[in-house]
Amino acid sequence: MPIVELHVLEGYGPEDKRRLGEALTDAVRFVVPAPPEAITVMIHEMPTEDYYRGRTQRSGAPALPDPKELVHSYLAAMEARDLPAATAMLGEGFVMQFPGAAPMTELQELIDWAAPRYRFVTKTYEGFDAMQSEGAPALVYCRGTLAGEWPHGTAFEGIRFIDRFEVNGGKITRQDVWNDIAEVKGKA
Amino acid sequence: MPIVELHVLEGYGPEDKRRLGEALTDAVRFVVPAPPEAITVMIHEMPTEDYYRGRTQRSGAPALPDPKELVHSYLAAMEARDLPAATAMLGEGFVMQFPGAAPMTELQELIDWAAPRYRFVTKTYEGFDAMQSEGAPALVYCRGTLAGEWPHGTAFEGIRFIDRFEVNGGKITRQDVWNDIAEVKGKA
Amino acid sequence: MPIVELHVLEGYGPEDKRRLGEALTDAVRFVVPAPPEAITVMIHEMPTEDYYRGRTQRSGAPALPDPKELVHSYLAAMEARDLPAATAMLGEGFVMQFPGAAPMTELQELIDWAAPRYRFVTKTYEGFDAMQSEGAPALVYCRGTLAGEWPHGTAFEGIRFIDRFEVNGGKITRQDVWNDIAEVKGKA
Amino acid sequence: MPIVELHVLEGYGPEDKRRLGEALTDAVRFVVPAPPEAITVMIHEMPTEDYYRGRTQRSGAPALPDPKELVHSYLAAMEARDLPAATAMLGEGFVMQFPGAAPMTELQELIDWAAPRYRFVTKTYEGFDAMQSEGAPALVYCRGTLAGEWPHGTAFEGIRFIDRFEVNGGKITRQDVWNDIAEVKGKA
Amino acid sequence: MPIVELHVLEGYGPEDKRRLGEALTDAVRFVVPAPPEAITVMIHEMPTEDYYRGRTQRSGAPALPDPKELVHSYLAAMEARDLPAATAMLGEGFVMQFPGAAPMTELQELIDWAAPRYRFVTKTYEGFDAMQSEGAPALVYCRGTLAGEWPHGTAFEGIRFIDRFEVNGGKITRQDVWNDIAEVKGKA
Amino acid sequence: MPIVELHVLEGYGPEDKRRLGEALTDAVRFVVPAPPEAITVMIHEMPTEDYYRGRTQRSGAPALPDPKELVHSYLAAMEARDLPAATAMLGEGFVMQFPGAAPMTELQELIDWAAPRYRFVTKTYEGFDAMQSEGAPALVYCRGTLAGEWPHGTAFEGIRFIDRFEVNGGKITRQDVWNDIAEVKGKA
Repeated sequence: MPIVELHVLEGYGPEDKRRLGEALTDAVRFVVPAPPEAITVMIHEMPTEDYYRGRTQRSGAPALPDPKELVHSYLAAMEARDLPAATAMLGEGFVMQFPGAAPMTELQELIDWAAPRYRFVTKTYEGFDAMQSEGAPALVYCRGTLAGEWPHGTAFEGIRFIDRFEVNGGKITRQDVWNDIAEVKGKA
Repeated sequence: MPIVELHVLEGYGPEDKRRLGEALTDAVRFVVPAPPEAITVMIHEMPTEDYYRGRTQRSGAPALPDPKELVHSYLAAMEARDLPAATAMLGEGFVMQFPGAAPMTELQELIDWAAPRYRFVTKTYEGFDAMQSEGAPALVYCRGTLAGEWPHGTAFEGIRFIDRFEVNGGKITRQDVWNDIAEVKGKA
Repeated sequence: MPIVELHVLEGYGPEDKRRLGEALTDAVRFVVPAPPEAITVMIHEMPTEDYYRGRTQRSGAPALPDPKELVHSYLAAMEARDLPAATAMLGEGFVMQFPGAAPMTELQELIDWAAPRYRFVTKTYEGFDAMQSEGAPALVYCRGTLAGEWPHGTAFEGIRFIDRFEVNGGKITRQDVWNDIAEVKGKA
Repeated sequence: MPIVELHVLEGYGPEDKRRLGEALTDAVRFVVPAPPEAITVMIHEMPTEDYYRGRTQRSGAPALPDPKELVHSYLAAMEARDLPAATAMLGEGFVMQFPGAAPMTELQELIDWAAPRYRFVTKTYEGFDAMQSEGAPALVYCRGTLAGEWPHGTAFEGIRFIDRFEVNGGKITRQDVWNDIAEVKGKA
Repeated sequence: MPIVELHVLEGYGPEDKRRLGEALTDAVRFVVPAPPEAITVMIHEMPTEDYYRGRTQRSGAPALPDPKELVHSYLAAMEARDLPAATAMLGEGFVMQFPGAAPMTELQELIDWAAPRYRFVTKTYEGFDAMQSEGAPALVYCRGTLAGEWPHGTAFEGIRFIDRFEVNGGKITRQDVWNDIAEVKGKA
Repeated sequence: MPIVELHVLEGYGPEDKRRLGEALTDAVRFVVPAPPEAITVMIHEMPTEDYYRGRTQRSGAPALPDPKELVHSYLAAMEARDLPAATAMLGEGFVMQFPGAAPMTELQELIDWAAPRYRFVTKTYEGFDAMQSEGAPALVYCRGTLAGEWPHGTAFEGIRFIDRFEVNGGKITRQDVWNDIAEVKGKA
């Protein structure tokens, strides 16, 4: 039953609009207990010549990339150890916080730090949650389980993890990681 | 510059509207790189007699409680070991997943499981992130550090943690916990 | 999925709005094959001081009475032979056209004309259909069956009839009647 | 002075919009005593990619045909005894009710039933009234006079009739007929 | 036929709205050659709790006084030589430019300068034109004729004048005067 | 913070819309003390087939020319003594009122009247103010200083002037002129 109308300068593509349609629907559902089918979103695009603020025309900025996809690509690049690709997705001031490690700022640091800990690791995803924070960054949470090999060659799998990413202007600026590796190792 | 108009049946309080105003603003910011000051939200409340769907009047449902506040209260009750208060905030099918533990469904189970692990624990919060998921539940992420005493009486502090909550219809239905306790213990 | 918004000067009551909500829904359904549940109507009332045409405030006119109810009341008054009440519902230039009769303009004419035809007649309604015509009058169609007694005392029932009314400014200005009385009498 | 805004998915042609413009104007006039010139209708078409319900895009259904034109074509086909054309306009469960006849469901039945009653009949129309009913069908009323020849060859004309049609999804599903044929025959 | 909708925070009185209704109508008429009767203005007032910019509520500022009335009062005070009242209507940086005089900033200067020119002067107004300039000030033009007495006691009348005022934040900040006094005197 | 929406039939060009955007912004600023940057104007163009008044489509009239530009062109033509061009810009009933002259209706009259007063005159503009009056005409005020040569060949400059124009349907119908020529001459 709630109806949302968005007036926005033209220039957004179908995928941007789909994301707007979903995000606006979910914003209403966050407060109003209406079933999704009862929530309508209408996007009204304005040609530049039809929109004035302060007596002057304004032009719209291109849409931000989907932060969920950005994080997905970043994690895939890291799993493939494609550091140049992964680095290209990082923004100024990037920091990583892994369990039991000091904050790191370079991906090579991470590789070096991980070397004595596991030979390799792959991620099975259970879910991604993404949202705009109150502040500048968009947030992406990604969780699931880790599989891989310990340094001595034994395989492991099913170890729970969760990552929290901050994305600013289409670049990853912070990654926080929690997992049960120590829990599992401690038991082993 | 984007303008959002929400038409909704009357009956929402100032606090509900504030949450709607914020969530709708952030939904736009998730896709459109406009500064917050350039995003306007107008909420148009409709008296019941002015709104018809399918030829009939509809009435609005009361707002959902703020899931962030719910989780905050729940965590406070747990820290105070006020199980009745905490239990009252749980919904049907509630499940907890803690590091290294099998899934638990009763708070007493958790208390028993934790007993040999630490005497007590308190949380210092670094931040809460809340959003509506694509599905039914609202999600609340809460992160920060743990302090407390190990069973043998030594104090600990600064141990990173993150909790993920699913909230359905104003009740907590799932809690997933990750932290560095094993990491810290393993080093000790 | 279609959404209708009506902006109208304030002063309409809940019943007027209900009629507007229904009529606007049906206007859409007349062209768009959407189920009623998918059609939303929002009525926005404007205080006089918020509405200007030609630089000047305008005030709204009171709603027209429901022509369906008017016709219902008129037929009840006629059945009860309450001519003063029925006459009060007639507008200037009122004309009646009954099967096999010349046009009549006075209710007493009708009573006199009917006298040799039946002792009395009552109506069982199957349905009323009402709409605004393209021109000034609203139209009400009313159909069902007649029961009563022939002049010689025999009872009759189940004789099909239909009446068409024109209603102008809340008054009946024309009544056209068709029925199967002659058909039934001819067979008798 | 009332202003109607219709938001509808794009895909409606100029003729569909004209019918919407008229029907919405008349819906307002049914309740609000404003002269037609004071009623404005604005139709806002939404591209599919700009409209979301329940987080998903919806597409509009093609407009329903004008039931007035459908009935007009049907009556013309019947007058021309073009049964295949007329039959093609009938929907499932079609029923006809003529004065003094049992309900009929096949056009050939009607032809057979009419044969001993008149050689042929043509209609002169005085007016068509069409509207959406509260339920599924659109309604068309058509009235005027009949002319033709009785079985023995005498001509007749000026006999009042009215037909009521129910139209469902662009097909005629019910026809009810009243006229003064028996009245006229009885007098003859 | 053009329709203007203004969304504004609540708090404006009937007189403010009347001025908005007129100014918005005239803004359209300045470009679109529609008769005033064809231009509709709807003012939608928003309660503070229903309006958000940048995620936060905003409150509306009180309406600016009508600059036409301000100038009218100022001219009346000057004619009555009520300098305190007139001075109270002047804003910071006030400047007057009269024909043949250097710019003046104090009303007493004007009185002194005028003393040898005329004993007194009264104004008959032919019209006031007021508008918002592109910049900060509102502008008021006032024109008509002057009557009064020359220093030697002869009466004069019908001398054309025009004044241009700049009004900032409800205070007069500039007055430019043109008139035919020299023309008339030169001929005398 | 105020938001203006204009619904208008399509057919207006970018320049017309810019003028509408500015005039509507200034109309709001005339009453509401909001900074221009806080005022948004959205122009919604309606295709003819989407707009109905009184059940019928309407078509929009072409925009009025900018009266400021018209006056500018007229004054340039007069300065260049291009009477045919200037005359083409005059509307029916045109009247001019110059200081110390009887009202004139023909440009040649003005030329003749001015001949003994100055050899030529050029204008330096300080500003143009334009607005729609409450009545039919748009108003343009133009002010600045005059330079030129007296009949005996002496140069003059810096003489203040102001012109007021009434523009009806794109033609100048009235010009009122005030200046300090007599003041300056009187002193000379």
